[in-house]
Amino acid sequence: MLENNKQPKTDLGKLGEFGLIEKLTRDIKIVNPQTIKGVGDDAAVMNFKDKNVLASTDLLVEGVHFNLAYHPLKHLGYKAAVVNFSDIYAMNGFASQLLVGLAVSNRFPVEAIEQVFEGIKLACQIYGVDLVGGDTTSSTSGLVLAPTATGWVEPGKTVYRDGAEKNDLIVVTGDLGAAYMGLLVLQRENEVFKVNPKHQPDLSKYSYVIERQLKPEARKDIPVLLRKLDVQPTSMIDISDGLSSEILHITKQSGVGAVIYENKIPIDPQTILTAEEFHISEITAALNGGEDYELLFTIKQKDYDKIKGNPNLTVIGHITEEPGAYLITNDNQKLELKAQGWNALENE
Amino acid sequence: MLENNKQPKTDLGKLGEFGLIEKLTRDIKIVNPQTIKGVGDDAAVMNFKDKNVLASTDLLVEGVHFNLAYHPLKHLGYKAAVVNFSDIYAMNGFASQLLVGLAVSNRFPVEAIEQVFEGIKLACQIYGVDLVGGDTTSSTSGLVLAPTATGWVEPGKTVYRDGAEKNDLIVVTGDLGAAYMGLLVLQRENEVFKVNPKHQPDLSKYSYVIERQLKPEARKDIPVLLRKLDVQPTSMIDISDGLSSEILHITKQSGVGAVIYENKIPIDPQTILTAEEFHISEITAALNGGEDYELLFTIKQKDYDKIKGNPNLTVIGHITEEPGAYLITNDNQKLELKAQGWNALENE
Repeated sequence: MLENNKQPKTDLGKLGEFGLIEKLTRDIKIVNPQTIKGVGDDAAVMNFKDKNVLASTDLLVEGVHFNLAYHPLKHLGYKAAVVNFSDIYAMNGFASQLLVGLAVSNRFPVEAIEQVFEGIKLACQIYGVDLVGGDTTSSTSGLVLAPTATGWVEPGKTVYRDGAEKNDLIVVTGDLGAAYMGLLVLQRENEVFKVNPKHQPDLSKYSYVIERQLKPEARKDIPVLLRKLDVQPTSMIDISDGLSSEILHITKQSGVGAVIYENKIPIDPQTILTAEEFHISEITAALNGGEDYELLFTIKQKDYDKIKGNPNLTVIGHITEEPGAYLITNDNQKLELKAQGWNALENE
Repeated sequence: MLENNKQPKTDLGKLGEFGLIEKLTRDIKIVNPQTIKGVGDDAAVMNFKDKNVLASTDLLVEGVHFNLAYHPLKHLGYKAAVVNFSDIYAMNGFASQLLVGLAVSNRFPVEAIEQVFEGIKLACQIYGVDLVGGDTTSSTSGLVLAPTATGWVEPGKTVYRDGAEKNDLIVVTGDLGAAYMGLLVLQRENEVFKVNPKHQPDLSKYSYVIERQLKPEARKDIPVLLRKLDVQPTSMIDISDGLSSEILHITKQSGVGAVIYENKIPIDPQTILTAEEFHISEITAALNGGEDYELLFTIKQKDYDKIKGNPNLTVIGHITEEPGAYLITNDNQKLELKAQGWNALENE
């Protein structure tokens, strides 16, 4: 529980390992009634009474999920927390606690770790989640963030990936593909910067797509909205790997198929403009880009009237009895979705 | 939940990322009634009813906590699971679920990851814990294991670090210092091997200390024993960083002091012999070595008769009203215990 393993002696050691933990955690305030004991013991202690308990872990690894050349440390901490909350919302649940595993090389000063934790704590504050423990240790090379989120859901309200049935409507929240376009912009600017460090890029026209990449938000509002609308999804998943991959998870686990429509997929105008600039299809970005952290779910047709016109929700297709998941393009082609992405448009 | 993040393309990709997950998890059987849904959704789903829920995470990082030259991958998986279970037992609780975060470089073939998971699954089987989820991803360099254990404890039975009171007895389970001596033996043999790869060491006389390092066990039996003996500890912690450090956690958090006796500290004869060979004090190994994963706890004096003569439990001292933690040596010196270790004997 937020204890530094003592074997390595790093520069961080100047503060003292337990000193670091104290510094990082002293301003934590517990807000959830389920949290009985947070940071400072061998394990966090919680009590969820009759609720189902949810737990999920998603790692963020330097050089794989982020590049410190353009991912600021505070944003990184924020993102690491938020992507873990997203998995809890994808069960139709409420994120309430976070444990943070952090492996950090001795090239980072104490202040850098504080920035990571500032982001984590900001996310916890905004999402109403208690930071209840973790483990901080050295790394011989890169920075690894290993958060685990816990949360709860009423047993009858839990939504799995395997409940989709024929004729159910397929719904997505928000818009898709922006985070991937943001990544492409950041990668391009980083290459330019390497050649010409004095270059001052004007990134204002990419502000939305960059923010979606650097500081994504999870759909905390959706489980609340679904209860308010009295809609119980038949299946749900968060969109971390791209729409294609997530639809295939649902269809495979539910033993069904799906048809979605290109002209229904919600995409922000800035995503479209940026995709045009990069000569890729915005639909490819939506299907395969990933990191949108929107929710994908299915509902019974009878619930359509309850969600109709809601600006947060877009019906993009329906579940079929026949296996296989397909995209109907604007020119009425039927293309099969692939787990690794829908390749037809990739080389446009 | 045991999903491979798809951004990196590694040799592991030949199997396919979802193929890897399926391979690693297909033989998992759920044994705990609290586990409602394990691997395969956005989050694990559990229900602990009126019990307190415990959660803890401890990372194992290559080059910091282990060296693949002498830590076999299967043992490593086993150890990563067990050290996380240990934190749950240290709350007087029962470990019941495990999530595993794993970051692995592309120099590892699929078979290597399978070995890590064999160890994790063996530990889960032996300890009666369900592997319910996780995340497997690439790493640009070393291997990082980031497990999170969950478990439960009856609300009235939860034991924290801050409940020790004046005159309570200080008890440890098992024996101490062996894991550290095992590490020293392994490090020495690795140095010899680097100079002379044909050297065939006879490690049989170090079998116990090496096993304590490579394949430690957590004290699953102690929460059961304590209930059987009708003993409710006033405070408890697991010994991961060495006895000194753990006693100081308890005394600091409980606002008390402690006195322990050198001649009471349980140390295995093989630990003593190995320490002599390395010209260090076995007491130093016990106080500062760490990784023993025994439990340290305090009990009321009135409970002494209940534990007396139990071969698993040794009373090593008592809690004092005055702050500060001290070791009374065999020649009756009183030495203060230090968080970073008790240095008086280190250079003997």
